[in-house]
Amino acid sequence: MPKAVDHAERREQIAHAACTVVAQHGFSQATVVRIARAAGYTTGMLAHYYASKREIILAALRLTLLRIEQRLTQPSDAKPDLLAVLSEALPLDESRFTECAFWTAFWGQVSTDEEVRRLNAWVHQEYARLYRRCMARHWPQSAAWPAPIRAHVLRSITTFINGLTASAVTSRADWPPDRQVAQLRMHLQLLLQWAETEAQRHGLRAPAVRAADPAVRRSRATQPRR
Amino acid sequence: MPKAVDHAERREQIAHAACTVVAQHGFSQATVVRIARAAGYTTGMLAHYYASKREIILAALRLTLLRIEQRLTQPSDAKPDLLAVLSEALPLDESRFTECAFWTAFWGQVSTDEEVRRLNAWVHQEYARLYRRCMARHWPQSAAWPAPIRAHVLRSITTFINGLTASAVTSRADWPPDRQVAQLRMHLQLLLQWAETEAQRHGLRAPAVRAADPAVRRSRATQPRR
Repeated sequence: MPKAVDHAERREQIAHAACTVVAQHGFSQATVVRIARAAGYTTGMLAHYYASKREIILAALRLTLLRIEQRLTQPSDAKPDLLAVLSEALPLDESRFTECAFWTAFWGQVSTDEEVRRLNAWVHQEYARLYRRCMARHWPQSAAWPAPIRAHVLRSITTFINGLTASAVTSRADWPPDRQVAQLRMHLQLLLQWAETEAQRHGLRAPAVRAADPAVRRSRATQPRR
Repeated sequence: MPKAVDHAERREQIAHAACTVVAQHGFSQATVVRIARAAGYTTGMLAHYYASKREIILAALRLTLLRIEQRLTQPSDAKPDLLAVLSEALPLDESRFTECAFWTAFWGQVSTDEEVRRLNAWVHQEYARLYRRCMARHWPQSAAWPAPIRAHVLRSITTFINGLTASAVTSRADWPPDRQVAQLRMHLQLLLQWAETEAQRHGLRAPAVRAADPAVRRSRATQPRR
């Protein structure tokens, strides 16, 4: 195995350990010593891979985001719907609970530090982009909705997932996996119904483009926009 | 002014300072020295009011909960609806932002410590009780809904408020007050419509008690339950 790959793998392993340590001990108690021990390294060895705790945490953030992106865009379910895909972001098992506890710990730091705030703005955008992609793929009809409706729905979904994350991480016993999924299912159903009704109402005033009919979409695409 | 009152007031003032310091600096950086300075005391003087940082934080939690309870149950608006009342829990102005940032910092600590976990379970129950009370008061029709529907709606409201809190605290620029309120308004509307429809559907199978008709409610109350 080439040395570069080995180095990258070890960096990832340390970042993963950092994620677990932050989830278990909180941000400030996640010392380099603890992270090194969890990864099976000495702090001296750790220094070969990361220059500072901040660098490790940044790598852990990137890793967590990458993992969630992989799960949301390449789900194991053969015919996934939006609920199945977004459920990948919820703390439904140990490994996702750790990721969500890591995010919750991170949120607790955001208001305290300008650099963390900038980092969070980036994470926030990445999540928004990811959810937008999921919605476009699994609710293709959303392409025909007016942009403000799409934006509202996307914000509402993000808010609800953040809320489920906070609730389930802080009150785990009250939020068994099936309850989390049931709440998200209902939320998605209500939003979809609302968006379709609103889009139709909008369409009555200004004939709407139906996502279900690509031919109509193509022909309308050449007409001038109102 | 009697000395006991003075003592209680000073304790409250310190608890309030602690809330602000946690919101600004995070949980671990909220040292007794910082809290004392923010309250205008020396650490020596602080010791007359609280035995430990933990005691101060506990008092800050109680104070924040008490304040939100006061706002939610005695709103300034003359004819408040559920939206107006629950908006009191959102970070819409500086003082509420501080409270919400304090909660978010607290969430980040929950997974790390058994005592914080117990404390959070209590806070969580208090919030649930408070939201339940608000719903019963401002949506009196909810009394006629089957209990599982009421429970689902309550959980969904709590989840959404937690999500708005997390989103607005961590991405303040993306969440101006009117956007927070608009999102909560829509969420409440959708839930209300869903609950009313479900309750009606349920009522078609087993004639439901209509909250709008107290006479029917009273007469049915004396009949044996199914």
